[in-house]
Amino acid sequence: MAVYTEIPDEELEAFLDRYALGKLQSIKGIAEGIENSNYLLGMEQGTFILTIYEKRVEGQDLPFYLNLMEHLASEGVPCPVPVKGQNGQTQQTLCDKPAALVSFLNGVSPRRVLPDHCTKLGQGIASFHVAGKTFNHERKNTLSVDKWRPLFEQCAGVADQLEKEIARELNFLEENWPRSLPKGIIHGDLFPDNAFFLDNKLSGIIDLYFACTDALAYDLGVCLNAWCFEKDGAFNISKARSLLSGYNKVRPLSADETNALPILARGAALRFLLTRLYDWTHTPDGPMTRRKDPMEYWQKLKFHHGVNNPSGYGL
Amino acid sequence: MAVYTEIPDEELEAFLDRYALGKLQSIKGIAEGIENSNYLLGMEQGTFILTIYEKRVEGQDLPFYLNLMEHLASEGVPCPVPVKGQNGQTQQTLCDKPAALVSFLNGVSPRRVLPDHCTKLGQGIASFHVAGKTFNHERKNTLSVDKWRPLFEQCAGVADQLEKEIARELNFLEENWPRSLPKGIIHGDLFPDNAFFLDNKLSGIIDLYFACTDALAYDLGVCLNAWCFEKDGAFNISKARSLLSGYNKVRPLSADETNALPILARGAALRFLLTRLYDWTHTPDGPMTRRKDPMEYWQKLKFHHGVNNPSGYGL
Repeated sequence: MAVYTEIPDEELEAFLDRYALGKLQSIKGIAEGIENSNYLLGMEQGTFILTIYEKRVEGQDLPFYLNLMEHLASEGVPCPVPVKGQNGQTQQTLCDKPAALVSFLNGVSPRRVLPDHCTKLGQGIASFHVAGKTFNHERKNTLSVDKWRPLFEQCAGVADQLEKEIARELNFLEENWPRSLPKGIIHGDLFPDNAFFLDNKLSGIIDLYFACTDALAYDLGVCLNAWCFEKDGAFNISKARSLLSGYNKVRPLSADETNALPILARGAALRFLLTRLYDWTHTPDGPMTRRKDPMEYWQKLKFHHGVNNPSGYGL
Repeated sequence: MAVYTEIPDEELEAFLDRYALGKLQSIKGIAEGIENSNYLLGMEQGTFILTIYEKRVEGQDLPFYLNLMEHLASEGVPCPVPVKGQNGQTQQTLCDKPAALVSFLNGVSPRRVLPDHCTKLGQGIASFHVAGKTFNHERKNTLSVDKWRPLFEQCAGVADQLEKEIARELNFLEENWPRSLPKGIIHGDLFPDNAFFLDNKLSGIIDLYFACTDALAYDLGVCLNAWCFEKDGAFNISKARSLLSGYNKVRPLSADETNALPILARGAALRFLLTRLYDWTHTPDGPMTRRKDPMEYWQKLKFHHGVNNPSGYGL
């Protein structure tokens, strides 16, 4: 659950005075999300999302994220647009924490993913990647292949019998990870929660706070895991084909990228397995902050073990 | 935190098909509130609150609450208006639980209460009480004076040294509780969280799920506790005077009611002390479901001990 900071009236008023959006009509804390405090603000000039960044490290990277959203939106990617204060800045301070206002995007995240969602998503990620080419900032992926071992070591003793198998997988990935694929700005966390659809169109890509510079095709590894498995664990090849064909239509994958998909998907599965294992031990449980099952990602990882070439993903 | 039920796409779609509100534009879980799941729905026809009632007992009383909101709104009280489905019913089912859509009200709950808020609130409660006179349904107060002892017994051992003092207070209130004051529909839980203000007007009275039939002036006892103390525990007599004068302008209190205010305020303080004590032992802690400090209400109760007549409340 996502509201940690309660905002005193005067501080909210002083904050909103920095914008030219008219008077506050309503404010509601948003339950979704985990890392930051999010509020839906009804202003005379429209509806906005107010985010208070709770983690210091994100505050440091905030200019990167806000500039990126601004850039992508200007290139037609359906991202939230950060709103400038009257001082020309998008990054502000509220309750002594970094804060920003962004535009509210209509649309609904699919709870049940259909192949058509995957087609539109694939096109959307490709547009995101293409638009990112003209963005002149970099941010290292703090959850890339070289960060998995330290993460794994912090989960020592948690994974029980799996520990040896995970170690073997980690060794394999470290040795065989494709390091020369085309790089650019990736979303890095494009789960169905972070995509909105409206009238059969992708209307929003949100939560860019894992965005970074990495192999573009790695985003597809993340999405193969997050969008193409059924709730019972079965892999849905139609969804994967839709995702990749959608992508290829806008930004055709190179042969190297296509061939790397199985290992990228394994790596992405391991990344989410490890962060979930970490969270399992470090986060208390609660409604809507339900800790996510790490084992789901072990099952997905094992599926990718059996994929020897891209035809396993419908290509 | 208030979102417990995750709604599958198809169930939400089928639910919304029962209304004539156009297509769904957005849905956000609302963080505020504890008992039920609340979502803010953007529909083509406007913005609505979807509530899924998580507790069975509330489901049974739901027709009372929904009829009450409808009645009060029709009398000009700024309550949410339940929306009728195409079958003419306001109460529907979603995810096998009772559910309803109500209108969204603009406005902001004051974090820092000013005397002017109290004036408007007093007028608003009085209008609520007057409008309730023509509402032909009853609901017993399940948290009235005769329910405090059983609640206290369920908190045995929790209040430590205070236990004897609480027992003494309970004895006193049971013996001296004013039982012949004018009765009607009360809100029963009108904390600042449950009131919205916009442009210096009371724009919303929400969360009517404690509404019941009881002594009207008891609502003022609740509000004296909830609106008229500072964060440091000091009683603010200006706020109390504003509250009661505002009320008197719309529905003049009888002498009996005015004289009963100190004991009603003591009773209300004990009621919240006891429910907080109960929740303290029966609810896990978490962000935005922070258990509320019962001792706050013991301090308030002790203040009311020192009030011998209504002049202590500025009258």
